[in-house]
Amino acid sequence: MIPYIGYFGSFLTAITFIPQVYKSWQSKSVGDLSILMVLIVVLSTIVWLVYGFAVDSGPVIVANFIVLALTLVLLYFKITFKKQPPLS
Amino acid sequence: MIPYIGYFGSFLTAITFIPQVYKSWQSKSVGDLSILMVLIVVLSTIVWLVYGFAVDSGPVIVANFIVLALTLVLLYFKITFKKQPPLS
Repeated sequence: MIPYIGYFGSFLTAITFIPQVYKSWQSKSVGDLSILMVLIVVLSTIVWLVYGFAVDSGPVIVANFIVLALTLVLLYFKITFKKQPPLS
Repeated sequence: MIPYIGYFGSFLTAITFIPQVYKSWQSKSVGDLSILMVLIVVLSTIVWLVYGFAVDSGPVIVANFIVLALTLVLLYFKITFKKQPPLS
């Protein structure tokens, strides 16, 4: 039972940034996104990947690989999407 | 050595949403944030908390409790901050 809770958690973690990437792609607007948050997620997934390979945990490796890929896309959006002009 | 990699990963995961909460609080603008992403994080942290208690893992419990608290703040911001008027 317990491993399946972990698999479900890994699944949810893996899909976390899919709606954000989709929304950012649709709106071409990422001004409200914290680039520091994105960078911390990139770094943390790399650390978790090292951990996942060290303890040979498939779910940790797969989930963090997916999160890393999605947050690298967000980072690319954050760098390339031009800022909206200010309201005033 | 390996446990310390896990602790470091847990630390990074725990602090992930601090810059986002800070930025959102400062700007009072969360329009570019995906509420679905926030909801998935809330759900995933609850699942990871159940897992953490089941396997008695302090780092998993502490990290996910912090992430849960921060994403609940983001959810509150997402619900309460009024949308900026459109540019055109």
